[in-house]
Amino acid sequence: MAHLLSTSYSVKFSSGCKPYTKPFIQDSALFPKSVTFQTSKTPFTRLLSQGKRSRSNCTVRATTLSASREASNEPSQGVHESSSEPSKSKRVMVIGGDGYCGWATALHLSKKGYEVAIVDSLVRRLFDQQLGIDSLTPISSIHDRLRCWKALTGKSIELYIGDICDFEFLTDAFKSFEPEAVVHFGEQRSAPYSMIDRSRAVYTQNNNVIGTLNVLFAIKEFGEQCHLVKLGTMGEYGTPNIDIEEGYITITHNGRTDTLPYPKQASSFYHLSKVHDSNNIAFTCKAWGIRATDLNQGVVYGVRTDETEMHEELINRLDYDGVFGTALNRFCVQAAVGHPLTVYGKGGQTRGYLDIRDTVQCVEIAIANPAQAGEFRVFNQFTEQFSVNELAALVTKAGEKLGLDVQTTSVPNPRVEAEEHYYNAKHTKLIELGLKPHLLSDSLLDSLLNFAIKYEDRVDKKQIMPSVSWRKIGARPKTVAA
Amino acid sequence: MAHLLSTSYSVKFSSGCKPYTKPFIQDSALFPKSVTFQTSKTPFTRLLSQGKRSRSNCTVRATTLSASREASNEPSQGVHESSSEPSKSKRVMVIGGDGYCGWATALHLSKKGYEVAIVDSLVRRLFDQQLGIDSLTPISSIHDRLRCWKALTGKSIELYIGDICDFEFLTDAFKSFEPEAVVHFGEQRSAPYSMIDRSRAVYTQNNNVIGTLNVLFAIKEFGEQCHLVKLGTMGEYGTPNIDIEEGYITITHNGRTDTLPYPKQASSFYHLSKVHDSNNIAFTCKAWGIRATDLNQGVVYGVRTDETEMHEELINRLDYDGVFGTALNRFCVQAAVGHPLTVYGKGGQTRGYLDIRDTVQCVEIAIANPAQAGEFRVFNQFTEQFSVNELAALVTKAGEKLGLDVQTTSVPNPRVEAEEHYYNAKHTKLIELGLKPHLLSDSLLDSLLNFAIKYEDRVDKKQIMPSVSWRKIGARPKTVAA
Repeated sequence: MAHLLSTSYSVKFSSGCKPYTKPFIQDSALFPKSVTFQTSKTPFTRLLSQGKRSRSNCTVRATTLSASREASNEPSQGVHESSSEPSKSKRVMVIGGDGYCGWATALHLSKKGYEVAIVDSLVRRLFDQQLGIDSLTPISSIHDRLRCWKALTGKSIELYIGDICDFEFLTDAFKSFEPEAVVHFGEQRSAPYSMIDRSRAVYTQNNNVIGTLNVLFAIKEFGEQCHLVKLGTMGEYGTPNIDIEEGYITITHNGRTDTLPYPKQASSFYHLSKVHDSNNIAFTCKAWGIRATDLNQGVVYGVRTDETEMHEELINRLDYDGVFGTALNRFCVQAAVGHPLTVYGKGGQTRGYLDIRDTVQCVEIAIANPAQAGEFRVFNQFTEQFSVNELAALVTKAGEKLGLDVQTTSVPNPRVEAEEHYYNAKHTKLIELGLKPHLLSDSLLDSLLNFAIKYEDRVDKKQIMPSVSWRKIGARPKTVAA
Repeated sequence: MAHLLSTSYSVKFSSGCKPYTKPFIQDSALFPKSVTFQTSKTPFTRLLSQGKRSRSNCTVRATTLSASREASNEPSQGVHESSSEPSKSKRVMVIGGDGYCGWATALHLSKKGYEVAIVDSLVRRLFDQQLGIDSLTPISSIHDRLRCWKALTGKSIELYIGDICDFEFLTDAFKSFEPEAVVHFGEQRSAPYSMIDRSRAVYTQNNNVIGTLNVLFAIKEFGEQCHLVKLGTMGEYGTPNIDIEEGYITITHNGRTDTLPYPKQASSFYHLSKVHDSNNIAFTCKAWGIRATDLNQGVVYGVRTDETEMHEELINRLDYDGVFGTALNRFCVQAAVGHPLTVYGKGGQTRGYLDIRDTVQCVEIAIANPAQAGEFRVFNQFTEQFSVNELAALVTKAGEKLGLDVQTTSVPNPRVEAEEHYYNAKHTKLIELGLKPHLLSDSLLDSLLNFAIKYEDRVDKKQIMPSVSWRKIGARPKTVAA
């Protein structure tokens, strides 16, 4: 899946993309009547042709030039003291910047004054096609997204389309952009996807592990001071019967004491790939002096961020299907279309959760407070714990307020996991660095439910039930959806 | 590197391979004057042609037929009560059976009455060619090895030549041989090799992790009761400041207690690949009910086993170079050729060691005492701990007895590792199952030194010094040896 075509953009904006509905536009100064933006830089050798297309009054020219480096964007005021100084890491490469968390993060960092480049193979969009699923929200192409962002804000985001498993491509992207921080979302991120069949299990581990190895080598070779901010998952820890710490645990055993990596018990080939990554990264921090932050993220919910709600072309994806959808988002869509909430098994499965607005905030905090050379730093990135049953109860209550009749059904658990267990995971390090959590609230649930109702015509109810079984995964290639 | 050619053999032995020198032949009954052996079985579809070659009076015919299943080999008396009942697992597939530990194990199991199939891509021999290195001992081709074994013992070992990363090949091998146990040595097993350059790092992790995933899927799909005996390494644990347990540790933390996987701190891309494997296997035991034994093996020394010393065509490989050679074997060869013993850094690095005769014994014990369905069992497979300095002192003393002038030199450590540290690793589980260790003795060192002296003309002194640096590994492909 190596795609060597790499592009960067300069955008000429003449009469403005149609503004989105209220309350999304917060600052009319973001919409200048005319912005012309073009710069020169060392030619990026791969892109040989220049094209011209127009859409929505945005004139776009694919060029061999890099636009953003020369942009003089004053950093806007950060919400946290610690994150208000992007000067510490001006150029941030967001790998996987076309995805759910990556897109929101790329825009957030761009808005905050960082120079941002998105590196993405767009393979996530291919998965949708192959599985016959789609985002609840109608997402624009990455090209249109970036044109719109430029038009709205005057800020350019560079785009490198390619596969980080292709080291030649990644090398070119590193040499061209010279990142000071890399935020790495660029992995196959669905546990069910990794459990469809052997080839998807192998793809997931190969893609994630080798892609991350390549990023580590690229940093070592082309930017030794570059700070790697890597997205891990709270799922790496599993559900131990003791408190979960942030990456390390101090153990006294037979009269001696050491602080060691927290034991991991991942429960899908996807989660395991993240464990493999963490181990690989930790080694390179020690052996090569790489500076890395591993963000063990909880389950993300929500769809709106300050930036994505500026225009409908910036809208983020929202997955509700059984493969890529996550618990709370799925429940809201199910409630909106009158489908019973699908609780797997007993519903006592407890995990850490966070609002996508906190995802972008956490990444910004990590970038603004980089790890030391040689440090492998682990943050547990979530704000609250819920069981599945608790989430179902919250969505039921919020739905009733909107006049929805919300039912719940227990479906046989397609996963192999404890359905009743102890769970207490620490998550203080990001708070200490300035995270101001958006806790799950009635208003968020209202907003999410209304969002789901707005797009309910796009819901394919056949995609709601789980279709992937942890136990029945076979060696033969499987077609999941009808 | 997928090689789809798979072969199995029937052997016609007429006048006997030339017996090796004393004391290797222990039973003249092993050398019948004429053995003709041919059987029929479901045709193995991949091998389309039949060839005929002769060598050393052994007539060999590559066929589409499988030979060993019908062989009526009475199990010989095992040395351990627990391992004298191969009936528990008659058919054993040895993946990587052409390698150092794999070859010795395959012969040992065949001798003990197991039906053995070797699965190997022979890529280890290619590495030698590419790096310009060679075994101290002149090893025969796998084909000649197996012909000789058949000629000496009447026992057939099936051969499947191919890459387990090629699932179609592995599927055919599983369906054809129907193993009741799989011993998996089939990985890139050198830490320095994995640290030569990016492409070897990526190769090592991809090859090892995906190969093992394929083995797990093959077991799930084609032999759910099959016992996986997987070679791990003591290096997975690193050098923690607390006692190393066998796979799991019970932790009391904040007033609660759980038994969790022992934290791993691997220190090369090779060692990390083994950690990844262990995590993947543990998951499939839980999710699919796979029965698995993870043998965290220490550093293996020695070259002779009862079986390999039966004939010179059965001789095992002995690596002394800086990439594939391991500590004690290297020191003996260095002493034999008058090269100073190469102690890396301070020499306080302490590890577990074992004689290769114990490797084969441990594997046999694991097979004879299979893990339960769903059990992920971890044994630390070594018999004694030594520091590098202690090994150097032992070799110096043994060399002096033979009239060798043995010097020691400290070379800058090419690895990133603690050179002085606490080390106390448990290794009781295999003892409890009947392991009778061959502890490191003067006679073993004498034997190994004499072996090295015998073949000293084959030593390329340029290969002795370490040529791979953990810190200097780069992204560019590297040619290691001159």
